[in-house]
Amino acid sequence: MAEQRTIAVIGGTGQEGGGLAARFAHAGHRVIIGSRDADKAADAAARLNEKVGADRVSGHTNADAVAAADLVVLAVPYQGQKHTALSLKEALAGKILVDATVPLVPPKVARVQLPEGGSAVAAIQVLLGPEVKVVSAFQNVSWNHLIDLDHAIDCDVLVCGDDNDACDTVVALIGEIGMRGFHAGPIVNSAAAEALTSLLISINRRYKSSGSGIRITAV
Amino acid sequence: MAEQRTIAVIGGTGQEGGGLAARFAHAGHRVIIGSRDADKAADAAARLNEKVGADRVSGHTNADAVAAADLVVLAVPYQGQKHTALSLKEALAGKILVDATVPLVPPKVARVQLPEGGSAVAAIQVLLGPEVKVVSAFQNVSWNHLIDLDHAIDCDVLVCGDDNDACDTVVALIGEIGMRGFHAGPIVNSAAAEALTSLLISINRRYKSSGSGIRITAV
Repeated sequence: MAEQRTIAVIGGTGQEGGGLAARFAHAGHRVIIGSRDADKAADAAARLNEKVGADRVSGHTNADAVAAADLVVLAVPYQGQKHTALSLKEALAGKILVDATVPLVPPKVARVQLPEGGSAVAAIQVLLGPEVKVVSAFQNVSWNHLIDLDHAIDCDVLVCGDDNDACDTVVALIGEIGMRGFHAGPIVNSAAAEALTSLLISINRRYKSSGSGIRITAV
Repeated sequence: MAEQRTIAVIGGTGQEGGGLAARFAHAGHRVIIGSRDADKAADAAARLNEKVGADRVSGHTNADAVAAADLVVLAVPYQGQKHTALSLKEALAGKILVDATVPLVPPKVARVQLPEGGSAVAAIQVLLGPEVKVVSAFQNVSWNHLIDLDHAIDCDVLVCGDDNDACDTVVALIGEIGMRGFHAGPIVNSAAAEALTSLLISINRRYKSSGSGIRITAV
């Protein structure tokens, strides 16, 4: 590992956030689970420490988690994304926000329903302004692959963002958790990764798989 | 091959259309290159017959090509897609139209710029009405892989459409030309495949590749 980071995972009590937190801790990083409920965050952190076999995960409120972190991952349901991001705007200034949001609209989650303007993550970059470097990633990785730490994940990560250095940082972090990240253009390009998730859900249902993913070929 | 089809490729004088036409002919199907200019279509057909080493490709006007075909592929630049499709509406009635359109907006082709409503191909299904079974496919396959007939293509095809039987037919056809097609949901899901092309162009530029593609994993 190049450098130990302190990574806040907002929504780390959920499945996708928990899976990412486990992978980051397993790779040697300090992880702070953020939740609206600090007790819930602490419980999730204790479970992750046990899973990873280390003492690198702690749990706090979202605001405290962001304040202590140098990189923040947002992994909350789409319905809570804007509100959560906006409530953390000041604390996020100067930091990288990795937004893993997929704009699924239940009950038809296998149907692409991108928001007005195209990308849910690009909308967060507009909302938070240039002080926060928003990077889109992890939309196409199933939590069940992430949480199974001994398992090599057969899926690449599309990384989109307007700040090249921030994208490079995230691509490197993805490498540390055993996956390949590809810098795939500006933040508006996140629309493709967001939309693709509904196609993977469609494929899971039709072909009876539980965690289909994508690989980039011929690079 | 299960059954010899007669496939019209509208825009078969272009790179993507020509590559698809070559693969279809190579797989044993009769192919009719459609163009606004019948002479240009005939020239392209002659070159493809030479390439394939058979006499299965002919060239005609778009209208004549569609009239003689049982399955039609639309592979024209985005700027000509709506006009071309609308001009063939009557002739397409009762047929499958495989639309390979990617809504690229030059000069920023590496930037996702989906049209109002999300998907350029879903818009054609609305335009043509239920008499035509529109199926989206081939957005993510580089023409240079298609035209190199001896070359196994390391790329899967996302197939989206509202008619299940039509999608099954197209998935089978994709198998005949040596690729894997995945039925990935309703026609609106085409937005993901359309957007993904700009990410692949982005990746080609950044990683100095010439024809990156995708594979679906863990199915």
